[in-house]
Amino acid sequence: MEAYSVFKDLAIIIIVAKFFGLLARKCKAPQVVGEIIAGLLIGPCIFGWVTQTTFLTEMAEIGVILLMFSAGLETDLKELIKTGPIALLIACAGVLIPLVCGGALYMAFYGVSPWGSEEFYKAVFMGTILTATSVSITVECLKEMGKLKGHVGTTILSAAIIDDVIGIVVLTFVIGFKNPDSNPMKVVISTILFFIFAIVVGFISYHIFQIIDERYTHTRRIPITGFAFCLAMAYVAERYFGIADITGAYVAGIILCSVKDADYIARKMDVNSYMLFGPIFFASIGLKTSIDHVTKDLLLFSVAFVIVGLLGKIIGCGLMAKLCRFNGNDSLKIGIGMMTRGEVALIVAQKGLSVGLLSPVYFTSVILLIIVSSVLTPIGLKILYGKSEQELISIDPYQG
Amino acid sequence: MEAYSVFKDLAIIIIVAKFFGLLARKCKAPQVVGEIIAGLLIGPCIFGWVTQTTFLTEMAEIGVILLMFSAGLETDLKELIKTGPIALLIACAGVLIPLVCGGALYMAFYGVSPWGSEEFYKAVFMGTILTATSVSITVECLKEMGKLKGHVGTTILSAAIIDDVIGIVVLTFVIGFKNPDSNPMKVVISTILFFIFAIVVGFISYHIFQIIDERYTHTRRIPITGFAFCLAMAYVAERYFGIADITGAYVAGIILCSVKDADYIARKMDVNSYMLFGPIFFASIGLKTSIDHVTKDLLLFSVAFVIVGLLGKIIGCGLMAKLCRFNGNDSLKIGIGMMTRGEVALIVAQKGLSVGLLSPVYFTSVILLIIVSSVLTPIGLKILYGKSEQELISIDPYQG
Repeated sequence: MEAYSVFKDLAIIIIVAKFFGLLARKCKAPQVVGEIIAGLLIGPCIFGWVTQTTFLTEMAEIGVILLMFSAGLETDLKELIKTGPIALLIACAGVLIPLVCGGALYMAFYGVSPWGSEEFYKAVFMGTILTATSVSITVECLKEMGKLKGHVGTTILSAAIIDDVIGIVVLTFVIGFKNPDSNPMKVVISTILFFIFAIVVGFISYHIFQIIDERYTHTRRIPITGFAFCLAMAYVAERYFGIADITGAYVAGIILCSVKDADYIARKMDVNSYMLFGPIFFASIGLKTSIDHVTKDLLLFSVAFVIVGLLGKIIGCGLMAKLCRFNGNDSLKIGIGMMTRGEVALIVAQKGLSVGLLSPVYFTSVILLIIVSSVLTPIGLKILYGKSEQELISIDPYQG
Repeated sequence: MEAYSVFKDLAIIIIVAKFFGLLARKCKAPQVVGEIIAGLLIGPCIFGWVTQTTFLTEMAEIGVILLMFSAGLETDLKELIKTGPIALLIACAGVLIPLVCGGALYMAFYGVSPWGSEEFYKAVFMGTILTATSVSITVECLKEMGKLKGHVGTTILSAAIIDDVIGIVVLTFVIGFKNPDSNPMKVVISTILFFIFAIVVGFISYHIFQIIDERYTHTRRIPITGFAFCLAMAYVAERYFGIADITGAYVAGIILCSVKDADYIARKMDVNSYMLFGPIFFASIGLKTSIDHVTKDLLLFSVAFVIVGLLGKIIGCGLMAKLCRFNGNDSLKIGIGMMTRGEVALIVAQKGLSVGLLSPVYFTSVILLIIVSSVLTPIGLKILYGKSEQELISIDPYQG
């Protein structure tokens, strides 16, 4: 492939995603919904103008990293510490309920299997796919509405991060029981080690950044160094600790969120994000979808899988939020904010495929869940926030 | 390769390039010199921390496109029309002299061959590699000094664009004579067709942009649509007319340079450029270099090739500029500004390899020419501009 053929893909993605993003906003839906639909339209499902290439996959990966870094930068650290214990409880419920329900669904379709059998682990694995929340769409959506820093927004974000970590630990446990090569204990230890590492590196980096920032406020070197730091943390997390790269990027953002120029860094990151990487990431969800090899049975299972996936999070997280004394509307917001699935679900599914716990046909179910949750979450959040404010959300003309 | 390993490469490139860029500026050299040296250091030549991957090549390609689009956007159209005829003369001289000298150099080393023989075309091809100016480094350097819009800057830019077109026509002629499959006449026609296409599309797009711009001044959709337009033009130029993609991007910039928000688009492009794509492009020049298989003979030839390459442009363009009534200092600036070679020389060399007119060992010579010219041009320009202003160039603190 010639290098210039990349330009065609990028031009199509950028222009179609922007067009549908604006169209979605006209229909009072968030822009991301439009961007995902744009991906579906230009992808192999419908027009086939763009196919998922390695280059686009890597660009989308950078897009997620930028999104999570930005989210970290905009975190209110005091609020995070305040919401921490509650977020932990919500995350635990949000992992447990979908895990159990997903396993039960598999057994309901394919028969109950005895504890410890091959089929039993396949059922548990189906539940595991449902555990990890992919918060990037919720983040983008809360950002658009200016609600990321609020109490509910911070709770969702913290819970999603904790939930990712628990999800990965669960995954390693399931694989560990099936395959003696993997060591669940090692995973728990490396997770703890990563957070110790993050605290030490974070403490040092924060002070170095403070010094550079004092001397060279608002110069290009601040966001450039910040971006390099984010990439390095994402890499180190995944490579040396087996923690998802997005968690590393988010932690990098949290480390820098109290630096004086945090807003300046976030603004520069946002330009990169909305010009190129953001549209590519959201469109690529649509691009991944293919509707070949879909049987009636699979379709039925997929629909049930999506319903269980969505309700599992709404009930698990929402009920726990209610128990933690959030009001009804806010509890629902948290439940709906946590129900999005994304690249992490796909990564888990990929892992299951490679160890023989998942048949490739179930990728269709996972992708369906990602699309449905990605479309419903922003719409749901927008309706709930609209309701709780009793007024239309004013739209900043500079955002479009 | 896992997706996250890309992050390591990017983090290293961004941080080392920025560090050496700042160091270069401390030594009163332009930042790009530092960035190219950074590429050499982290590349396979010295530390080997980063190797050139397909992903990085494609990112670097986007970097060049952004650079040329930016240059187009900052073009003073009136100035370009005024300098057009002179630029054409300078470009012609800048193609002819290096072409003849390059051929003569090959014959001086490997013996004179009769007109029309295989060896004769190899000699002509060596000259052809020397024809195409790669103006991106000069552009970046003039931009840093705030001299891009001046009379000399515009002349260099226009001449380099014309020179690229002539260089590609010469290349097609040489290959055409060697290989009956290629049709030189077709190339001339498609070049003319491209410019007719650009004028028609440009006229329509300009008016559409004017309307959008009036309605939605300073909104995100302006730079996003502009960027998509640039990518589309780059793709169409290369894919349908066989014109270099960078020429397409430059033309896209020129089309939009009189739109009210041209500055706003350029500013947003610059953020993308300096945060990520710029450093990748300049560092990748260093990354490409490998010092294996270098014999003493080849080294001698390479040194002579570099000297002929540099002097050919300085004499060709500089003398013609002098004949066109530029003063001595400005003529030298034009000669030095035109002597940079870059990706186009490599593309030409690649083409020669594929049709059997160039042995792969000469890639070393081409890369040496690119590096030496990339380092010397900015230094030369900075000295000459410093001289002509009789004062130190003030450095904008917000640029670092």
